[in-house]
Amino acid sequence: MAGEGVMSQRELWERYKKYLCICPTVGFTLDISRMNFADGFLDQMSGPLQAAFAAMEALEKGAIANPDENRRVGHYWLRAPEMSPEAGIGRAIRDTLADVHWFAEELHEGRIAPQTAERFTQLLVIGIGGSALGPQLVADALGGPSDKMRVFFFDNTDPDGMDRVLAQVGDKLPETLTLVVSKSGGTKETRNGMLEAERAYQARGLTFGAHAVAITGEHSELDQYAKKNGWLRAFPMWDWVGGRTSVMSAVGMLPARLQGLDIDGMLSGARDMDRETRQRDVLRNPAALLALMWYHAGKGRGTQDMVILPYKDRLLLMSRYLQQLVMESLGKEKALDGKVVNQGIAVYGNKGSTDQHAYVQQLREGVHNFFVTFIEVLKDREGASLPVEENATSGDYLLGFLLGTRRALFEKGRESITLTVPDVSARTLGALIALYERAVGFYASLVNINAYHQPGVEAGKKAAGSVLEIQRKLLSHLRGTKGTPGTAEELAAAMGATDEVETVFKVLEHLAANPHHGVKRTEGTTPFGARFSVK
Amino acid sequence: MAGEGVMSQRELWERYKKYLCICPTVGFTLDISRMNFADGFLDQMSGPLQAAFAAMEALEKGAIANPDENRRVGHYWLRAPEMSPEAGIGRAIRDTLADVHWFAEELHEGRIAPQTAERFTQLLVIGIGGSALGPQLVADALGGPSDKMRVFFFDNTDPDGMDRVLAQVGDKLPETLTLVVSKSGGTKETRNGMLEAERAYQARGLTFGAHAVAITGEHSELDQYAKKNGWLRAFPMWDWVGGRTSVMSAVGMLPARLQGLDIDGMLSGARDMDRETRQRDVLRNPAALLALMWYHAGKGRGTQDMVILPYKDRLLLMSRYLQQLVMESLGKEKALDGKVVNQGIAVYGNKGSTDQHAYVQQLREGVHNFFVTFIEVLKDREGASLPVEENATSGDYLLGFLLGTRRALFEKGRESITLTVPDVSARTLGALIALYERAVGFYASLVNINAYHQPGVEAGKKAAGSVLEIQRKLLSHLRGTKGTPGTAEELAAAMGATDEVETVFKVLEHLAANPHHGVKRTEGTTPFGARFSVK
Repeated sequence: MAGEGVMSQRELWERYKKYLCICPTVGFTLDISRMNFADGFLDQMSGPLQAAFAAMEALEKGAIANPDENRRVGHYWLRAPEMSPEAGIGRAIRDTLADVHWFAEELHEGRIAPQTAERFTQLLVIGIGGSALGPQLVADALGGPSDKMRVFFFDNTDPDGMDRVLAQVGDKLPETLTLVVSKSGGTKETRNGMLEAERAYQARGLTFGAHAVAITGEHSELDQYAKKNGWLRAFPMWDWVGGRTSVMSAVGMLPARLQGLDIDGMLSGARDMDRETRQRDVLRNPAALLALMWYHAGKGRGTQDMVILPYKDRLLLMSRYLQQLVMESLGKEKALDGKVVNQGIAVYGNKGSTDQHAYVQQLREGVHNFFVTFIEVLKDREGASLPVEENATSGDYLLGFLLGTRRALFEKGRESITLTVPDVSARTLGALIALYERAVGFYASLVNINAYHQPGVEAGKKAAGSVLEIQRKLLSHLRGTKGTPGTAEELAAAMGATDEVETVFKVLEHLAANPHHGVKRTEGTTPFGARFSVK
Repeated sequence: MAGEGVMSQRELWERYKKYLCICPTVGFTLDISRMNFADGFLDQMSGPLQAAFAAMEALEKGAIANPDENRRVGHYWLRAPEMSPEAGIGRAIRDTLADVHWFAEELHEGRIAPQTAERFTQLLVIGIGGSALGPQLVADALGGPSDKMRVFFFDNTDPDGMDRVLAQVGDKLPETLTLVVSKSGGTKETRNGMLEAERAYQARGLTFGAHAVAITGEHSELDQYAKKNGWLRAFPMWDWVGGRTSVMSAVGMLPARLQGLDIDGMLSGARDMDRETRQRDVLRNPAALLALMWYHAGKGRGTQDMVILPYKDRLLLMSRYLQQLVMESLGKEKALDGKVVNQGIAVYGNKGSTDQHAYVQQLREGVHNFFVTFIEVLKDREGASLPVEENATSGDYLLGFLLGTRRALFEKGRESITLTVPDVSARTLGALIALYERAVGFYASLVNINAYHQPGVEAGKKAAGSVLEIQRKLLSHLRGTKGTPGTAEELAAAMGATDEVETVFKVLEHLAANPHHGVKRTEGTTPFGARFSVK
């Protein structure tokens, strides 16, 4: 099979009907008719798939599904606390959710109030990775003019980026609640963001703690800091919930509830999707079908990128969210048996039909290294549309472009999956996230990897730590030599860090470009001959 | 060569110094030391590269560099009108730029004023693809609290997306200027956006034309519509400027100037980078080096994705901009000699260090199908930073994470380019765009393709047109049958469109989910047995 040249429209309709997976409880359909898998493929995969179902069942029952970190993997319990393997866990989930509701209610009603203003009207969320992408997706997908609080994010350690956000927060800082989100409490970007925010409050004569809430592991650095400084409250993060699947814990639920969104709807959508995706009949299980299609497309080795194209502005951040969920879960060096496999699937995409005007040229004609997932949303908008032409609205065009692009790609043998959802509601978003969480879990089983750890991110953090260590030594050396200028080579040698001269050079160039540390640069005769000193 | 295991830090420093490309006029450096090309690679490529230089020179002198469309390619003239091959072209560029300045000045001073309000304070830009991505990048990278106008975008035909933007525009619609940007004037998404905006103004009793400006080709549909409806003004788009390289024409310059940004700085940065990238000494030409590195990484066949990681929040949209510039330019089925080559390079990325917490796990350990471009910005913020630890600021951490991640990737044989720029100013952004425009042009020469057309996007638009045609027939059939319900199969047959039953089914499901066309759906015994009617 290779596109429409080979199958007629009629045959495609039969294939569509044959494979269409319908999820009645959430109103989703998943169409895999434009994936060119052979007829026997699903049968061939049934052994490995049954093993994946078994592994998932064990995971949900509380097995140590993340063996490297010796942890349980409990994000499914967040929407079904009665399934958790220990009564204490179920209670913690229920209590935390009740607390989230209570806290938000108190805050909205002004019973929990800021230091000098009457009410909290804005929210600054400080987090990165799993502590930001979920909350950002939810805030953007479901937010609107009737939100109870306006939400801002610090999701990096970029000083200018933080300044810009603070400028938008503006005069309303006294009415702004800051949530600091970090499981370990030791994430440097988040710690830096917290300190920058703290200073902004202090500069206005405000006590940071009176405007601050932590979401963090019990007894973490952040938890202790919050307690010591009299923060309003701390909400828990549990070691059995990974960062990239934490959106339905307090991490995602607290900011969403504060914004005024329907978190119970989100949880119920996820819970219903969890039920749909526990079914062992593959044709009725959309997560199993997704995992199998990913396997088919990339031959189980990630040879094809996953292009995510939701035809809906509100789902713009879906691809960024899935980048993390899919790539951090599946991008692994070693299989569970220790073999080097270099697994993963690259994910990118923004939204349709916008991306048609950006890179569908390459998708149709260029390098054939991807498959597309179209996300179709049935509901166009609140209320009715006026026609833009006879018998056609803007929303009709949106569907037209989706179907048109799908056809144009398929004609050239480019495969696609189409996921149809009723709307962009809290329920739908919860179901969508749950669908991909489980598909990622199944796929990880199919290729025999641990989807729940991230051993590869430590090396970069450690290397970053040694760059800062070099900077500290460098500054203390420069200050000790009282203004004697040196080149990067000379300074590295004097510090006993000859091997690290390139890092020394990069750090010096950066220091000299910014006023804070007082480093001066004097031009040399060559680019590497510049001399640096501190007066 | 395969990472730091093979080369010592000392040898890497020598390699860094040997290959570092310095652009003195714009303050950029390009570091290719972490690309594992062999020593003879640059020499090997010198023949094809000289041919690329010659092709670029001919292009700049006015050759028909886009043969399929029989067009010149003139975006470099936009910042150097004296180089244009005809006096008339140079004059048009200068006159348009003067007009942009004049119009913005008049508008800021309130001499060009809206119908009922005193002054225009907001800007709604309606465009898609090349008519949106450039303006969005510029607005986001350079905008700030002192902007003269707040900028919004319609960049899709999503009804809910437009409603959301209009809700943000809010009560200030009477002070909002709308720019409609479409070269041909026939882009449906933009036309739909224009009609939706027009209605919003009308709903407030305002005349749309008194708030509207067109940027379009002379005599285009849009140009005629603007004239007929007494719009404030029309600015030109020329057939020798492609959409994806139009940001330095009125398309990008008008909204940027209205926002209050330094467009002359942007043009001068681009002009200086153009000079740097005309040099035929490859080690001094950063665009040539980029193109060669892309060639090296992907073996001239795009086998490696290009991951763009600017360590700066303001450059978040850079990867989306480059997705279009690179993928639409390079993603081609056929070479200039007609051979099928399926070229292209996939581009994705958001920003560092945020993305380290999303997918650097996969980059370091997972599927090895990419190379990274780090963008380092030397300047941290306006003014000084306070330390977050002894001798370390948030910005020092940002550099630490960049260098740390670069090292962690290189240890595993993952290649990267590092581009260092002084700041995120108008000059720097202009230079950055110019650098990539020329790198794309060079790379296209190296792989012998036309970088300036997009033959693959028509098929999707045509197929979308036929979906809307089917919808029209369907609605008229349903109205003609006065409420007799039919299944998709029955209706397709009755319309004489048996082959298109799947499209009929998809259109019906969408129609029934939205109130505007009055289509009713009655559940059937099977999912495909639902019946549809119009009362």
